[in-house]
Amino acid sequence: MRWLAEVHVRLRPGLADPEGQTIAGGLRSLGFDVDDVRAGKLLRLAFDAEDRATAEAALAQMCGRLLANPVMETADWELSADETATVAIHS
Amino acid sequence: MRWLAEVHVRLRPGLADPEGQTIAGGLRSLGFDVDDVRAGKLLRLAFDAEDRATAEAALAQMCGRLLANPVMETADWELSADETATVAIHS
Repeated sequence: MRWLAEVHVRLRPGLADPEGQTIAGGLRSLGFDVDDVRAGKLLRLAFDAEDRATAEAALAQMCGRLLANPVMETADWELSADETATVAIHS
Repeated sequence: MRWLAEVHVRLRPGLADPEGQTIAGGLRSLGFDVDDVRAGKLLRLAFDAEDRATAEAALAQMCGRLLANPVMETADWELSADETATVAIHS
């Protein structure tokens, strides 16, 4: 069975975020009054797994071993069965 | 009123995604059988706006002018009233 996961990788609170600060500076120079911006990663993965439990376990391993640095980042995800074929027909 | 927005910036379908390909290669070398990875940005913004309509309009402008490149990327967001103070008490 094919799964689609959307993984959200966020910098832990309290850690300096130079990318976010740069974006905040850019927005302010355009006249937008933002007071805080945090930048993270949004990853979309497609992979095969027998069932939801196996897919969740694989995702947890992928996050812990490569997608996020657990010292500095947190990762959470939304997992759904891939229905691309059906979606493609309707889009 | 203070608002929190989580902005998802995704590369348009069909465009080459070298970052996603690199991540996919890394996952495969670790033994995970992923067949597609797409990388995007996850931005969290805090800003002031009078009401929800004003906040939505400001966000649309921020995305169009700085956060996303409309030629190559799409942006969508979740907007919520900031209740950090309350959350902090309970966490």
